[in-house]
Order: sequence, then C-alpha cells, then structure tokens
Amino acid sequence: MRPVAVLGIGQTIIDELWDKSLREIAGDAAIKAMQDSGVEHPEGLFIGNMLSPLIGGQNQLGAFIADWVGMWQKEAVKTEAACASGAAAFRAGLMAVGSGEMDSALIVGVEKMTDNVGHDVTSALATAADADYEVEQGVSFVGLNALIMRRYMYEYGWKHADFAPFSINSHANAVHNPFARLREKITLQQFEKSAMVATPINLLDASPIGDGAAAAIIVPAEKVNSFPGRPRILVTGSASATDTIAVHSRKDPLFLSAAYLSSKRAFEMAGIDQCEIDFFELHDAFSIMSALSLEACGFAYRGEGPRLALDNEIRIGGKLPICTRGGLKARGHPVGATGMYQIVEVVQQLRGECEETQVDGAKIGMAQNIGGSGATVLTHILKAD
Amino acid sequence: MRPVAVLGIGQTIIDELWDKSLREIAGDAAIKAMQDSGVEHPEGLFIGNMLSPLIGGQNQLGAFIADWVGMWQKEAVKTEAACASGAAAFRAGLMAVGSGEMDSALIVGVEKMTDNVGHDVTSALATAADADYEVEQGVSFVGLNALIMRRYMYEYGWKHADFAPFSINSHANAVHNPFARLREKITLQQFEKSAMVATPINLLDASPIGDGAAAAIIVPAEKVNSFPGRPRILVTGSASATDTIAVHSRKDPLFLSAAYLSSKRAFEMAGIDQCEIDFFELHDAFSIMSALSLEACGFAYRGEGPRLALDNEIRIGGKLPICTRGGLKARGHPVGATGMYQIVEVVQQLRGECEETQVDGAKIGMAQNIGGSGATVLTHILKAD
Repeated sequence: MRPVAVLGIGQTIIDELWDKSLREIAGDAAIKAMQDSGVEHPEGLFIGNMLSPLIGGQNQLGAFIADWVGMWQKEAVKTEAACASGAAAFRAGLMAVGSGEMDSALIVGVEKMTDNVGHDVTSALATAADADYEVEQGVSFVGLNALIMRRYMYEYGWKHADFAPFSINSHANAVHNPFARLREKITLQQFEKSAMVATPINLLDASPIGDGAAAAIIVPAEKVNSFPGRPRILVTGSASATDTIAVHSRKDPLFLSAAYLSSKRAFEMAGIDQCEIDFFELHDAFSIMSALSLEACGFAYRGEGPRLALDNEIRIGGKLPICTRGGLKARGHPVGATGMYQIVEVVQQLRGECEETQVDGAKIGMAQNIGGSGATVLTHILKAD
Repeated sequence: MRPVAVLGIGQTIIDELWDKSLREIAGDAAIKAMQDSGVEHPEGLFIGNMLSPLIGGQNQLGAFIADWVGMWQKEAVKTEAACASGAAAFRAGLMAVGSGEMDSALIVGVEKMTDNVGHDVTSALATAADADYEVEQGVSFVGLNALIMRRYMYEYGWKHADFAPFSINSHANAVHNPFARLREKITLQQFEKSAMVATPINLLDASPIGDGAAAAIIVPAEKVNSFPGRPRILVTGSASATDTIAVHSRKDPLFLSAAYLSSKRAFEMAGIDQCEIDFFELHDAFSIMSALSLEACGFAYRGEGPRLALDNEIRIGGKLPICTRGGLKARGHPVGATGMYQIVEVVQQLRGECEETQVDGAKIGMAQNIGGSGATVLTHILKAD
C-alpha cells in the first residue's frame, strides 16, 4: 500500500441537532474537510454509519451523501462495524487510495440519533451485540459493559471511584473543545453521586449519544506537496481485528484481544512501539473500556489500567494524554461518527491546533475505535512528518 | 492495485430458508468457498448485506460472521450500498488484497429476508430510496421502477409484452441452476396474464426476494500458481459510480448514468470494449432494468434495450447471453447477496462449469450490480487466464 496522508479535516458540534437532517450534518463536516484540504472534487466517498437504517429509515448512505455534497457520479459506499464504523470507513478509504484506485478520498463518519423515525436508540444500539445469544436474553449494550466492569472490579480489586479519573479527564479536556457535547468539568464527588444506569455503570461512566459528523480528506503522501502550506500528516499505522461477537464466548472477557491485535499490527506497520506514542484517543464509551483499552494496547499491565489515570498520567502533560478533546465521554459518542472524530482530533493535535489541550511537541498520535463490546477494533497511528 | 484473482466460490440455494439463521446461511457459502479455493484461513472478511439490522436486528456482520466461520481475530467488516451491497463488498475486498494489505480475502454476500423479527420487507427495501423525498411521499421501491418503466414505454413506444423475453430468458436459464429460487420456464402467455404489482410491473417483471448467500475467495493473481489445479480467473475490471439517490433529481430518469460510468471505467481498466464480453450477468431486479442496463453499458442504443431480447440474442448461444444462471428474476434476489451471486456465476461460466447453460468458449464475463433505482452501480469484468 502506498503511503497516505490526511490533507483536510472537518467536524460538526455533537448535540441534539433537531434542525439538521442526517444529510445536512454529514454535508457540513464534509464541506469543511474539502475546504480545509483544498480538494474540491475528491474521487471517492466512504461513509461510516451504524444506525441510519434503523433510526432514520435511510440506507445507501454512500450515494445519498455523495449526491448531497456535490460528488455527483463518484464512487461512494457505506461501511458498518457498529461503533467502529467510523474508523472502518477510514480504513476502507485508506485502502482505496493506498491501492492506487483513486488519488483522493473523503471519509465521513455520521450519526443522527436524537430524532427518530424508527427504532428507539437503546434497541438500535443493541444490534451491535449478538441478536440470537445476547440481545434475545434481554442484555442491553450498557448491561454487557456493566457485567464486564463488575467482573473487572471483582477480579482486580478496584473500587468504582477508581474509574473516576477517566471521566474527570475527559470532561476537563472537553471544556476547551468547541465541538464537544458536554463542555463542563466534573468532580469526584459528582462522579460518585451520579445516577446509576446498570450497576456499576453510572451516568458519569457512560458516554452521551448525540448527532454529529466528522470528516477527513486523504491523498497519497507524495501528493501533499502539490497543496502548498498543508502540513504532512501521514497515516503510518492502520489495522483492524475482531473478537467473538458475544462476550460470553471469549476465553477472557476482561481482555480486548482485538484491541491487542489491531494495535500490535498498527505498531508494526508504523515501525514504533508504545513509548513513541505522544497521545492516545481511545474509545471511552464506558470508563471500563478506557482501562481495558490501555491494557490491551500495552500501555498498562493487565488489571492495572486505572493506575495510569489515578497517577494523573492521562492528563495533558502526563505520560500518556488520552481523550485530549474530551473523548467519547464528554466530546460525545454519535456512534458511527466517533471513529472519524478520533481521527480528526489526532490530526488537530499533530497540527498543533488544540490550544489549551495541546500536547506539547505532539508528533505521533494513536486512535482506537471499538465496535460492540470489543468485537471489532481498529487502531490508527498518525504522524506529523 | 496489483492484479487479483478469484480462487474459490460458494453459494447456497436461494429460498425461504426457515431452518437456517443468517449466520448459518453466510457460513454455508463461506465454507464452500474456502473448501473450493483451498484457502483455509483467509486474512480478511468482507460482508455485503443490506437488511440485517432492519429485519434480523443484527448489525456488525463482519465480526458476527468471522466468529461463526472460524476466522477468529481476523479483520472483518460489512459494506452496504442497498442492492449493490454484494458487489460493493467484493470491491472492498479487491482493494484490500490489491493494495497489499492482505494476501487473501473472503467476501460473502448474504441476506435473510423471509423470517423477520423487525420491519416488513417492503418498508425495509424502501430504505434504499430517499427517505425524505421519495419514501415520505409513499413511493415504494417497485413503485419507483414502475414509474420509470411507464415513462420508458411512453417515450420509446414499447409495449409491456416487449419486455417478456427478458423474464422468459432468465427463467429458462434458471431451470438448470440448482441454486435458483424459481426453476421453472415461463411463457409469453403467462407473462402477459401475470398479476399486476405496480402498473406496468407485474409479478413476472419482478424478481423474487429470498434468503441466500454467495461467497468468493480472492488472492493476488501471482499466488494462484501456488494452488495447483486452480484455474486463473482474473478480476480485470472493477469500478463503482453513483447517481442521485432520488430518481426525480436526474436529468434523464431513463438513463442509468452510474451504470454507464462504472461500466466505462471497468472496460478501460480491463483494456477491452463491449464486443469482447462473452456474457453479461446484469441486474434484472425488474425487466425494465435489463433494458436500461444494456443501454447504459453500450450493448444497445438508447431506447433499444428490448430489441436485443426480442431478437433472441440474450439466450445462451446468442450475441450477448445475459442472466445465464437465471438472473435476479429467476435465480432470485436476496438483495445484499445478489452482487456476489453474479460474481460466483461469472466464475462458474469462466470455469466452464455451467453445463446446459454454459456459454461456449466463455473467456470474459461481466457482472453489474445496481443499488436503489440506479443510485449505486458496480461493474466487474472477470477473465479466464
């Protein structure tokens, strides 16, 4: 695969965007990315989306959004891998440009969750789990994560409050992100008193849903120089791996083996190891996922994920800043769009555009997007060249 | 993109498969393709599916089916482009192998339409059209095609019976395809007396839905020799294009511009033109689509699509045999699987495995898969090397 670079990015605020339709939200992010990149006519469009058929009654988002953003007649397709749809679309675009099939691609992660012509959101999200063996038993998506968290606390002796620093960090960073859904700090006391959702997961362990879209334009790395003034942000690592879809089928439900494998491959492809990562946009859909992701990617020993947060090493300026723009927890989690928000945020850091939450001297950033309870995991590593 | 070859194929019968779940259907085709190819552990899995979230309550089919077919931990993802989902997944796999990201990929098109835990099939299929501007007005998918057909008949002076040869041909060929849904010949008289669905489309203009899966294993062309005895079936052309999602937005609703563009690009990539195509698996979801597809791909002049059929040139032995295994009309149309059935059938022809419906000396075959009413169109050209 030839080297690929991110030339432009765009995103919308994540919120309940009642006055915007799915196509308008996607279009807003797409047009921003086109303008940011200087590429007016990308050759292909890759959409990441999970819920539009269920919630909006709309399939075929490739042609649907190509039409809306003026990419008439261009190749366009949708990729779905539950909450990892955004990164999966990014990787599809990467392979299209990397293979030489096209010289530019627009990737858009988009989700419209709050006005709903079809299913309710909880049952729609449950389609990420195993319909026959999990959902049929009445397990919701939060329920599955609650079971994992409870087992983790039992196995390794952590208290619920030990997970608080993850959420506190994400909220602290989101304050400075104009696109974030929850731009407010939270305290340990608030975390402890927050309403229970599914024991032990409470409201402040869980990320908020929302409407939003994030987009990027990618081109072959060798073409960046033909766009004067654009920074060279290379995609140096990209990998995807899966695990059993049902959590109960895993040898060890406390180890995200797909996160382990996809990060391992991405590190190999980039030719680096963990210590060279300057910051990590991880998939904190629930606080337990932050701990498991850090462990699976080799940033913490098994069972020690919360330690990094308790030691204050995940903040801006710490050893491994995570969720520097607010993460899923506070920036928000418009499911199929999230993976693209992470990519956009990595690019923002590598360009040095993050002001109060800028990671000093950030050269290499990593993003990890998780579908289901760890069933599909994509890891990307980007580098400022 | 490095050259890619199809090494193995598999398919299930298309029917109401009440005793099989979606994962079992997909698994049956996948395992057949693995066995046929000799590739026991493909490196990546690409699923084409449209309706599973709506009808089966199941998303994330990549991980879901990877798990079921023993592709543990492997990269897996789903691609959706309405009824073109199958070919879109094939193209995604092609770019993955073609880019060098992997050395083998399994592509499975799968659909389970007849037992339904969610939406009814008609409203689920309507998600391929524009939810805001078409479906909202009460137009069903057949309805849109009926409007196109009526306009075509008015514009070019064809009678309804002039479309009969398309359906008669598909049914005649399906008789010899053990995987076909409707293995029975039909007559002109039956065609004319068939029950009306949406004027002028009657039951024998329309393809039957069904459950089914079709699969292929692809590898870099240079690796075929390491599988002794396997024929070299090269993918020499692959292209995708889109049109406006709403039919009313098109300059000319009677011209499938995305079919035109994707076939043009596929011809260019293959370095051939129309006259070198030995047979054509086209997307006869409705008989009108056969005519429009032939015209858009340059096999017939504008408004002359039915002529080729009336002149008996589309049968086995004719100038351009189409739907040699029964097409959507009689083999059946399990929507997200259809594109992969077409690929599998092209491979069968190129291998000379079609017995009664074998196209003599078939060396180059073409498949075209259409999503929506022409909104996403993929064209593939395969060649026996």
